[in-house]
Amino acid sequence: MNRDLILNATVMGLGMHLGAWRYGDADPFAYTDIGYYQEIGRLAEKGLLHALFLADTLAVSEENFERPNLGAMDPATVLAALAATTSHVGLVATASTTYNEPYNLARRFASLDHLSRGRAGWNIVTTFVPDVAANFGSEALPRGDARYDRAEEFVDVVRSLWGSWEPGSLVGNKTTGTFADSSRVHAIDHHGSHFDVRGPLTLPRSPQGWPVLFQAGSSGPGRELAARVADVVFTARNTLEAAKTFRDDIKTRAQTYRRDPHSIKILPGIVPILGGTEAEARRRKDDLDRLSGNAELRKLALRVGVRVEQLELDAPLPVELIEANKSFRASEGFRSAAVNLATSERLTVREILYRNGGGHLQVVGTPEQVADTIAHWHEAGAADGFNIMIDVLPDGLSELVSEVVPLLQKRGIFRTEIAGETLRENLGLGVYE
Amino acid sequence: MNRDLILNATVMGLGMHLGAWRYGDADPFAYTDIGYYQEIGRLAEKGLLHALFLADTLAVSEENFERPNLGAMDPATVLAALAATTSHVGLVATASTTYNEPYNLARRFASLDHLSRGRAGWNIVTTFVPDVAANFGSEALPRGDARYDRAEEFVDVVRSLWGSWEPGSLVGNKTTGTFADSSRVHAIDHHGSHFDVRGPLTLPRSPQGWPVLFQAGSSGPGRELAARVADVVFTARNTLEAAKTFRDDIKTRAQTYRRDPHSIKILPGIVPILGGTEAEARRRKDDLDRLSGNAELRKLALRVGVRVEQLELDAPLPVELIEANKSFRASEGFRSAAVNLATSERLTVREILYRNGGGHLQVVGTPEQVADTIAHWHEAGAADGFNIMIDVLPDGLSELVSEVVPLLQKRGIFRTEIAGETLRENLGLGVYE
Repeated sequence: MNRDLILNATVMGLGMHLGAWRYGDADPFAYTDIGYYQEIGRLAEKGLLHALFLADTLAVSEENFERPNLGAMDPATVLAALAATTSHVGLVATASTTYNEPYNLARRFASLDHLSRGRAGWNIVTTFVPDVAANFGSEALPRGDARYDRAEEFVDVVRSLWGSWEPGSLVGNKTTGTFADSSRVHAIDHHGSHFDVRGPLTLPRSPQGWPVLFQAGSSGPGRELAARVADVVFTARNTLEAAKTFRDDIKTRAQTYRRDPHSIKILPGIVPILGGTEAEARRRKDDLDRLSGNAELRKLALRVGVRVEQLELDAPLPVELIEANKSFRASEGFRSAAVNLATSERLTVREILYRNGGGHLQVVGTPEQVADTIAHWHEAGAADGFNIMIDVLPDGLSELVSEVVPLLQKRGIFRTEIAGETLRENLGLGVYE
Repeated sequence: MNRDLILNATVMGLGMHLGAWRYGDADPFAYTDIGYYQEIGRLAEKGLLHALFLADTLAVSEENFERPNLGAMDPATVLAALAATTSHVGLVATASTTYNEPYNLARRFASLDHLSRGRAGWNIVTTFVPDVAANFGSEALPRGDARYDRAEEFVDVVRSLWGSWEPGSLVGNKTTGTFADSSRVHAIDHHGSHFDVRGPLTLPRSPQGWPVLFQAGSSGPGRELAARVADVVFTARNTLEAAKTFRDDIKTRAQTYRRDPHSIKILPGIVPILGGTEAEARRRKDDLDRLSGNAELRKLALRVGVRVEQLELDAPLPVELIEANKSFRASEGFRSAAVNLATSERLTVREILYRNGGGHLQVVGTPEQVADTIAHWHEAGAADGFNIMIDVLPDGLSELVSEVVPLLQKRGIFRTEIAGETLRENLGLGVYE
């Protein structure tokens, strides 16, 4: 049996659910504490998860006074701290191509790859939150196509810098005094429409050569970037059909770039809300919803681009209103996920909130039910694995690792030992030479 | 007795001496390995040192193929890893105001301050290496005054962001659902000549409020920035008189900004090259020099702004040539340190190389001799402490901690226990509220 299911844990605030900070007796400010992240790292390794995936938000919005900002801490900085206390879990940090310089970013992720001995990943985002622009100058957030134009060039510069020290360029001969072979270290001399970068990088080639590239764009330009450069694509798909269509689309697009479709892995998000029985799981969900007030409803409104007053809990999602909003600027992926779910199954707003974890597949149920869904999607060709969005951290992760992971191992689809040294190897990706 | 001497260890490559990578049997590539930095962190804590200070270089030059780049790894990333394996040593990372965005930098250092529970420091540099500019666009390195103009505004933006969540703005009341008091979290609405930044920061106030600010400028604008904002000034002064004059100057300038002169600490660099006897120390130095070829000579030429062929080992430093170079763009501090040392004691180039560790005070001798010099400068009002530039890491640090630190403790000038929780407290700085 092919134990090739990929499982990552997504770390956001104190958990994916907006009521997480009020749940149980955990410290509501733990999301800035190193001990909190170390515990998450320990649990992820115990469960043999492939990677921790840290989301990011480069701005504070009004709702961040009601609960922790889901991406408050600098992700690469948090993961560098975990490089020291973990030994095999991948460390994937989100960073924006719109609000960084490629030389700094290439160097930071190469440093993380060295420090973690080959476990770094970069989740490429172009940033879609208009509030962020105001923290980086007087200009508005660039349009999606302009952001992706910059992102394409940005990624190429970063990859060139990562490759600027050839394998074998380090000599280290103490007797002759030859430290490096300068003929194998190259300026990149990049001159493009967005960047001029001479290079080479300050650092020799990192263990993975190229840290693993994650990407999550759903728009046309986002899919093209993914198909061309991503090793792993993270996506919000809350029906199996939508996930399968998306996965097929990305793998087909990848082939137009002459890539082996197996070299690009598609991971939908999944939000498991676990209970010993389905009734217990629903109680957990009800408690969390109550603790979040109507936060998820407001978030849904924001993500589909209507005002919260335009949503009624027991009425269908107002698809016409949503489609009439021509000034919509947030993530296309989240919006279409919610709309498709609502129309395909005629769900009310309340039912959407139940099924849709912020645009992602949500399973409120027993460990068996969660394992069934994961296995079913995996077998149906809808997912190479999942980015698991934990409702409440670290408890939800602890339950996942203790209750769900063993079921997936028993089914023979999830690994029972760690074969590779690097994240790239463990994801079943070709090693970049 | 006032045990207020400050001692930091400066971490560069495999050590400050350019022959370090060939010395002994250590791994010449250890400077990218986490275990190397963890050992340095362990030793610094054993010696009760105040901080690790990581230098930075944002470009590779020809000489980096002869030996490790002294600032190859991203400093804040390395120190985040050490946040997890150290508990009381300060973590001071260099970062450029010319090649970063203030929002990203403020967030990264606030994250490091949270993760280290109040031990982060930022060494503010404007970048003086022209090669770096080519990695960040098509424009040349801005002139010194333009760089400092940007740096002044950059630091103000960063401090405003660090202060954007007032103390007490976190509430965390699970019963009422009040997470934070939005009336105590403020946009900064900065609109300056270099930056437009709305804020607030994504993160609540970090343990130190403001991570400790280090600065090392020696030019007029550099000293003004230091006097206005720095908590700690790192400087290259290789005579006691020069150090005393510099320290007096900075403290006087600080008073014009209505600052308590005790609130700004002046730390010259010192390069101890240790041996059980003076003869052994000289042998260590001779071995290192031999292993570095003529690298230190070439570095001296670069730093004083002449061609290496214009330096003769047994002739005096060509001061007239040096002063005639009107296109000099590198650090004023390093240049004047070398020139002053040479003229005040009529030293040959060879003797300068012996006394001057890259512009810093260098003591080639026994632990007693090093401790004598440190104590003498401290008592004479030339230094609040030192940034110790270790010749070969980690061995030189191990010897310093075992042999020199106990002598300074015996003299009653260096601490024997750690009183404060944060770096700011341990440096004897006022706590920012």
